[in-house]
Amino acid sequence: MAGELTILKLGGSVLTKKDRPLTVNLAAMRRLAREIKNAGTRSLLIIHGGGSFGHPLAKRYRIMEGLKDESQIIGFSRVHRAMMELNAAVVDALLEEGLPALPVSPSSFASTEGGELRSLETDLLTKYLRMGLLPVLYGDVVLDSKKGFSILSGDQLVSKLAIELRSRLIVIGVDVDGLFSSDPKEDAGAKLFRRISLKNLDRVKLKPSKNIDVTGGMPFKVKELSKVVEKGRQVLLVNALTPRRIYKALLGEEVIGTVIDP
Amino acid sequence: MAGELTILKLGGSVLTKKDRPLTVNLAAMRRLAREIKNAGTRSLLIIHGGGSFGHPLAKRYRIMEGLKDESQIIGFSRVHRAMMELNAAVVDALLEEGLPALPVSPSSFASTEGGELRSLETDLLTKYLRMGLLPVLYGDVVLDSKKGFSILSGDQLVSKLAIELRSRLIVIGVDVDGLFSSDPKEDAGAKLFRRISLKNLDRVKLKPSKNIDVTGGMPFKVKELSKVVEKGRQVLLVNALTPRRIYKALLGEEVIGTVIDP
Repeated sequence: MAGELTILKLGGSVLTKKDRPLTVNLAAMRRLAREIKNAGTRSLLIIHGGGSFGHPLAKRYRIMEGLKDESQIIGFSRVHRAMMELNAAVVDALLEEGLPALPVSPSSFASTEGGELRSLETDLLTKYLRMGLLPVLYGDVVLDSKKGFSILSGDQLVSKLAIELRSRLIVIGVDVDGLFSSDPKEDAGAKLFRRISLKNLDRVKLKPSKNIDVTGGMPFKVKELSKVVEKGRQVLLVNALTPRRIYKALLGEEVIGTVIDP
Repeated sequence: MAGELTILKLGGSVLTKKDRPLTVNLAAMRRLAREIKNAGTRSLLIIHGGGSFGHPLAKRYRIMEGLKDESQIIGFSRVHRAMMELNAAVVDALLEEGLPALPVSPSSFASTEGGELRSLETDLLTKYLRMGLLPVLYGDVVLDSKKGFSILSGDQLVSKLAIELRSRLIVIGVDVDGLFSSDPKEDAGAKLFRRISLKNLDRVKLKPSKNIDVTGGMPFKVKELSKVVEKGRQVLLVNALTPRRIYKALLGEEVIGTVIDP
């Protein structure tokens, strides 16, 4: 398994219409399924975010704060149910391309400790991958040994699984071209970093998301992904809303984006 | 937890239209959700079967035979996807009644050995129950250490979890009134056993299902449930298609059905 696995993260901002609750970006989802099919990656694991399915509900029920009162319990169910719905749409798009996508629910086997993912049972995932299945995980609500429950973000899963399963390639599909020297929407001179090392990450202009993002948006994404870069792996951020970038990234071809280097 | 938990199995023949592929029996599902809500059972775990969602697809891809050729792999995905769909409908009916239903996917944490469920990680389930959540499990495709993959039936989950979690009450909702001395559809003199002991089970007329049932129908159901009766527990079979029987069974009231005794 070592050195074979590719991990592909698909951001919720790519798969959903962020400004419309519980709305799938079906066109992007289908195009991405085709790109993944065409890339023909041998051993692939997909992790997706929550977008407008997970975040608004998680915020409403204050899941990140942990269990404080009984009224939040139904919220735990509702957030998971919404994530299942998004996951089903992703899996259906992949199945339509003939890819043997298999949903794996984090809340069915994982839990956190003060929001941190200490350990993760990866035995089943490894076996699914060996069998040729394409596991599809997602950011989910999980039990937390300190605060009752929490959210386990897709990015936390990426960094943990990339380390535990010793992935060959980590591709993070987001809704921007990569990391910039300043906000490209405000500064015409903003420069895309094509390659940046861990120690230079503070040069990047990281703005919190304008949309509801209970997992902290780009700053927390980069912080979380740094954990796997610290272990000596490269992480590639690409714009998954632009056609063929995920395809090229999966094939290891030259592509516009940002490589975060150790 | 010991002695508190109630396990409720809802058969696929109750939740789906068995003769129509991928069709939910929505009226039964909603009524059952209301009965479960009204019973107000404190610590409850639900397990459901596959009906017309799981069985026809599982048969088509010969999942029970194990992995024999590559063409079955997509079948593993498709059976799980269909079961997720049925599970989502059950969970939605429960959520509409304000019950904090939480889907727990067997394929995300369990596997079998030659079709048998040797061990099962119950730690998360116990914690979900303690938090007041209502876990909803289901018959699912799972990896198998001997034959590649297999089906883990809802009844296998019932007997394993009833033993491991030391349940107080085990209610099995089926589409008949219980166990009979002969087939009630063919013999007007067929007698419903209101109570039967393990050693007298051979007096029961058990006919295989007329519908596709990859897990073997009533004979295998009874055989599987016998495992928990052997451990000293009673199992109550009731007709979940008849209103108020599940409600009464959950409350421990007198109800038409069959009690299987040690």
